[in-house]
Amino acid sequence: MSMQYYPAPIVKLIKNLARLPSIGEKSAERLALHLLRAPWQEARRLAEAIVELKDRVRLCSVCYGLSDAETCGICANPARDTRMLCVVEQPGDMASIEKSGAFKGRYHILQGVLSPMDGIGPDGIRIRELKARINAEGVSEVILATGTSVEGEATADFIAQQLEGRPVRVTRIASGVPMGGDLKYVDQVTLKKALESRHVL
Amino acid sequence: MSMQYYPAPIVKLIKNLARLPSIGEKSAERLALHLLRAPWQEARRLAEAIVELKDRVRLCSVCYGLSDAETCGICANPARDTRMLCVVEQPGDMASIEKSGAFKGRYHILQGVLSPMDGIGPDGIRIRELKARINAEGVSEVILATGTSVEGEATADFIAQQLEGRPVRVTRIASGVPMGGDLKYVDQVTLKKALESRHVL
Repeated sequence: MSMQYYPAPIVKLIKNLARLPSIGEKSAERLALHLLRAPWQEARRLAEAIVELKDRVRLCSVCYGLSDAETCGICANPARDTRMLCVVEQPGDMASIEKSGAFKGRYHILQGVLSPMDGIGPDGIRIRELKARINAEGVSEVILATGTSVEGEATADFIAQQLEGRPVRVTRIASGVPMGGDLKYVDQVTLKKALESRHVL
Repeated sequence: MSMQYYPAPIVKLIKNLARLPSIGEKSAERLALHLLRAPWQEARRLAEAIVELKDRVRLCSVCYGLSDAETCGICANPARDTRMLCVVEQPGDMASIEKSGAFKGRYHILQGVLSPMDGIGPDGIRIRELKARINAEGVSEVILATGTSVEGEATADFIAQQLEGRPVRVTRIASGVPMGGDLKYVDQVTLKKALESRHVL
């Protein structure tokens, strides 16, 4: 990358922006030139929001989701059903399920998946904390909503195994053909799964 | 947009990021979650680069391009040919021409185009400054490299008119079919222009 035709502060911002995921050098250049033209207040607000994010966001002490307080809004909400516990990999997964509006219980964020290749074993994700919560909170159903990648499936299987013998129902979210999808765009593994998991109407 | 499932600092950053051009709400969410996971130093550097951009970048007093000093690197470079002056609309256009490596003269950045609809007349862009430079710097050729939009064309025509009678050659960059392009993807106006501007081989 040779950008000597921009002054140093612009080159610096372009390089910093280009480090972000799915922002190429061309997009980074466009964003930097936009910020340059934008009102000073807009740029300032963005810079402050980045710093504030790093300063104020931490993990909820109950579910290990993202929070700006000791306990996150969902765990602190008395209207949420404490008997249902939905286990996800990452905070973004929790946000997706919340957007669906289909779940009124609480969450447990593992902060990862089992991944022997990367040296992440059961102690590398929050499984011990999950077991402690099941005991302490009177959970009656644990919904395993880790991803459908190899690691996500293995993590769900491992947790189900670990919970065997406890007085708790352990379920897994369904996998199959996405809604609204055209079968011809669905991959073979998903189709196989959808056929295996067929049910009577 | 309902994002009560993220803590306030994250929602704030997502909203600020989503204001940037070509960053939708979904991308903004992904970027915010990336910054949250990223090392503190990476986020800090990005925030600082934004503030520094606004604090340090100003217009070059010669060409009105972007600079972090009184005079930009190109105007201050004695190796650039002062007899050739390339007139562009915006600093980004200058950067594109520099990337091409095809021009060794200096630039004049208009900071806009004539646009009666938006109330931008000759005094709204740096035409007066262009005339002053042509006199003062011994320019022998002015290359009009404004865009090929209606406003860009009109601006080039207007400047050519204004420079009539001066001892300076006024040229316009060629327009036509982009290199490496398939004719069937080229719009009708461009094809018409390419045919009109055909030349003997």
